[in-house]
Amino acid sequence: AIFEAIQAALAGPASKPLAGKRAIVTAGPTVEPIDPVRVIANRSSGKQGYAIAAALEALGADVVLVSGPTALTAPAGVRRVSVETAHEMLMACEAALPADVAVCVAAVADWRPASVGETKLKKGAGGPPTLTLVENPDILATLSKDQRRPRLVVGFAAETHDVEVHARAKLQTKGCDWIVANDVSVAGTMGGDDNAVAIVTHAGIERWERMSKGEVARRLAARIAEELP
Amino acid sequence: AIFEAIQAALAGPASKPLAGKRAIVTAGPTVEPIDPVRVIANRSSGKQGYAIAAALEALGADVVLVSGPTALTAPAGVRRVSVETAHEMLMACEAALPADVAVCVAAVADWRPASVGETKLKKGAGGPPTLTLVENPDILATLSKDQRRPRLVVGFAAETHDVEVHARAKLQTKGCDWIVANDVSVAGTMGGDDNAVAIVTHAGIERWERMSKGEVARRLAARIAEELP
Repeated sequence: AIFEAIQAALAGPASKPLAGKRAIVTAGPTVEPIDPVRVIANRSSGKQGYAIAAALEALGADVVLVSGPTALTAPAGVRRVSVETAHEMLMACEAALPADVAVCVAAVADWRPASVGETKLKKGAGGPPTLTLVENPDILATLSKDQRRPRLVVGFAAETHDVEVHARAKLQTKGCDWIVANDVSVAGTMGGDDNAVAIVTHAGIERWERMSKGEVARRLAARIAEELP
Repeated sequence: AIFEAIQAALAGPASKPLAGKRAIVTAGPTVEPIDPVRVIANRSSGKQGYAIAAALEALGADVVLVSGPTALTAPAGVRRVSVETAHEMLMACEAALPADVAVCVAAVADWRPASVGETKLKKGAGGPPTLTLVENPDILATLSKDQRRPRLVVGFAAETHDVEVHARAKLQTKGCDWIVANDVSVAGTMGGDDNAVAIVTHAGIERWERMSKGEVARRLAARIAEELP
């Protein structure tokens, strides 16, 4: 920490514009148990969220990365909190407040099974079971209306169609400041290394060309630093 | 191949008792799409199946490893066929016939969603959707009754309770020769490095002490070699 402080001092404040700022980043899928063996999951790799956590840390922020199960290593200097379900992810985010910025990148399951079997469901004469689902807590909306709301709350919207229409609607319903909209119908986006995003704010929309998830992360971190003087 | 043939010739037939034998091993979870983003999956890591594929290869077998999505590297000398759903896994197994032995280790989803959304399901006013499931093809039973049935068909049974009762029933209903029963209610088995198994055959039951998945694999491969002179 002393070494890093000296480095930062030598580098000057311009290179660490987020020094002293606290960031929460959520990443990866959430996994919702059906029984002890089966789960509802999704195809999120966590790459985009991890890249954003690393990019915010590189600009000096104190970063808590709340992550669902992924195959990724935590970026250096970032504190990772590992969770499984949407409920656990929300609890971990609230425990990490207060923060200056929250970037909700995780692909949180909208729904979970209404009841979780304590033993493995068996194939039986009754035919396949019907999975009744219930709504999960909405982490982005909950953080956006929290009494300790971060000054800047950024959500991600992975959509397969009408990306910008859904992103604009999400900006309103969630109460967040920006939505980073990406089109996961583009082959290779979900789990892949590139991303084509649009930043939707209350002021307007900004379309970024297709670039690596690392470059999306660095540009987004730089934009966040501008927004948090 | 020449080098390996020389090695095998030097080592003598005793060390490669499965030389010239063809094996099919299934491993990992299957992943059943709900929509382009969401899936039903399970907690199988694929470790046990990969270890068995490697152990059979080490005894000289020509191994096709039909694998669901895992984070594992294919063992050297093993031909891996990557699949996602139960249906794809069955197709890949049938394409790999004829074989002398099939070892079905994969945690195949018993059920899949009856219909797969072409676009991401949206949260709406109607509340959470109900997931109607339909039964998946039974790979173990299908291989066991195939016209080109391998001489030895081995199934795995991951159970959380009444492990041996369920294993014995499975032996009958599937029509396979052996069931390797393991108790996944033991913490750390699913996704972990150790396994405590019992081999259930038409002749009886053999309980093995708790050991590494690698050791389970080597002992099982040796037993298979005894059975396939």
